[in-house]
Amino acid sequence: MSFSVRILGSGSAVPTARRNPTSQYIQCSSRHILIDCGEGTQLQMRKFGVKFQKLDIILISHLHGDHYFGLMGLLSTMHLLGRLKELLIFGPKGLKEIVDLQLKHGNGGFGYDIVFKEMDSNTHDMLFEDNKIAIRSFPLKHKISTHGFTITEKQKEAKLIKAQIEQDNVLVEHYHLLKKGIDVQLEDGNVLRSEDYTEPAPNAKVYAFCSDTAYFPEVVNEFLGADILYHEATFTDKYVDRAKATMHSTASEAANIAVRSAVKKLLIGHISARFDTGETHLLEARRVFTETYLAEDGDEIRL
Amino acid sequence: MSFSVRILGSGSAVPTARRNPTSQYIQCSSRHILIDCGEGTQLQMRKFGVKFQKLDIILISHLHGDHYFGLMGLLSTMHLLGRLKELLIFGPKGLKEIVDLQLKHGNGGFGYDIVFKEMDSNTHDMLFEDNKIAIRSFPLKHKISTHGFTITEKQKEAKLIKAQIEQDNVLVEHYHLLKKGIDVQLEDGNVLRSEDYTEPAPNAKVYAFCSDTAYFPEVVNEFLGADILYHEATFTDKYVDRAKATMHSTASEAANIAVRSAVKKLLIGHISARFDTGETHLLEARRVFTETYLAEDGDEIRL
Repeated sequence: MSFSVRILGSGSAVPTARRNPTSQYIQCSSRHILIDCGEGTQLQMRKFGVKFQKLDIILISHLHGDHYFGLMGLLSTMHLLGRLKELLIFGPKGLKEIVDLQLKHGNGGFGYDIVFKEMDSNTHDMLFEDNKIAIRSFPLKHKISTHGFTITEKQKEAKLIKAQIEQDNVLVEHYHLLKKGIDVQLEDGNVLRSEDYTEPAPNAKVYAFCSDTAYFPEVVNEFLGADILYHEATFTDKYVDRAKATMHSTASEAANIAVRSAVKKLLIGHISARFDTGETHLLEARRVFTETYLAEDGDEIRL
Repeated sequence: MSFSVRILGSGSAVPTARRNPTSQYIQCSSRHILIDCGEGTQLQMRKFGVKFQKLDIILISHLHGDHYFGLMGLLSTMHLLGRLKELLIFGPKGLKEIVDLQLKHGNGGFGYDIVFKEMDSNTHDMLFEDNKIAIRSFPLKHKISTHGFTITEKQKEAKLIKAQIEQDNVLVEHYHLLKKGIDVQLEDGNVLRSEDYTEPAPNAKVYAFCSDTAYFPEVVNEFLGADILYHEATFTDKYVDRAKATMHSTASEAANIAVRSAVKKLLIGHISARFDTGETHLLEARRVFTETYLAEDGDEIRL
């Protein structure tokens, strides 16, 4: 099953030529998900070849502008390009009011339906579930109500070993149980052992996204063992006081969260515009957690 | 006196890699004015070296998103970069409500004052005046309340011819009247003729901006003889029906307005994303009005 993350914006509140404000495009199974939508996201999508009209779901972590000022423009462009498919938007209380007010004054509307769902600011929640993926939200610790998200594949059934099945003439009617890991007792007394006829499906993968947040170790239970954790890392160690004052994290703090949550890889971003590169962030994080990577606009990461 | 127009966005509702949505930066005397602020304007300003903090005045022509979705981001960035200087914003009714709602939900505010002035949708109006420039608005013909603007230099005094003044030992006390074009009668009966001691100041210049509008010849009285008229030209002749339906103009119609208003130069923009280039627009407009130029993002035009 395909599962990938495209970084559309790896910057912080002040955009730069190198880093757009936060946005990520997640393709998981047949679902196409946008997390946050800073100003200029639609142009980044165009630049990196992301198809607007495939989008199913938009998740907005919080109502600081660098995480949603590109939303109205993207919604409008999808309308102008003829979108008809319903769109699901999950966001904090207030987002719908903001969209509706701008539509009212523009005397407009969209040719497709938007289903808005407001997130509860205090609890974690199952936002969306189908037979292949699940999306959950959880609260972070920031100046205003802010959420993180996990996108989780569902565990697939084991895969039949075709050669073995054919060699032993296993009947089709037994496939179902074997794939579920259940042994089958035949009428002649023989037993077909699931492990002889199947190989396990790859482990279902988990992507976790931690938007703007102060250092908040309580959060680790939300994504223990995730394959990739994206965590904001606005500042380097030198600016730890500034991080505290603005309720953001340093790269070392992000790495500390990665260690505590035993994730496989850490991806850091939301790099403040005061830094020309994120090299120092990366060095400082890797001292704490080796498997750290720095997000750059345009990067595609496969899970 | 310096007077220039920087094109920050020459595109239409759907942005492309080549054309951002509408925005222009006008520097006139010591005033720094932004007309419209489509999504991504702040990045365009950065790209083309326009200093954010010099901005004095923002004019928003109407509340279709491609003319203002970049405003909140720009206002936020100016705040984050430490702006303290008051900012004047002129826009349609509703703009202040939109800005205030987003500030409320972001739990934020700016470190500088914004003075909002709403424009009357039906009349032309003097928006701003100091001793060097005047800014006026006038109604256009579009789907929602939409304004055009003129930015006008004030006529300067004549300039003294220094060599002549020195040769005839003209006293300083007479400069003032001479520069105003008034002859001076001396006590000895001689007359100092203003025309002998001064050369006329260059004519004061006028820039006119016609935002989204259907073909609307009544508007020409607002900018008769202007040095440069910017007029939207979303479509080519082939799409005249589409222009009518969406209340936009074709390039030929824009050129027709230029002829009727006897402006010196016409600048066309707001090119629909359906066109790879504006070459056809330019050809069609020049058939009607030779002095037509096509706006491209980044162009700087000096008046």
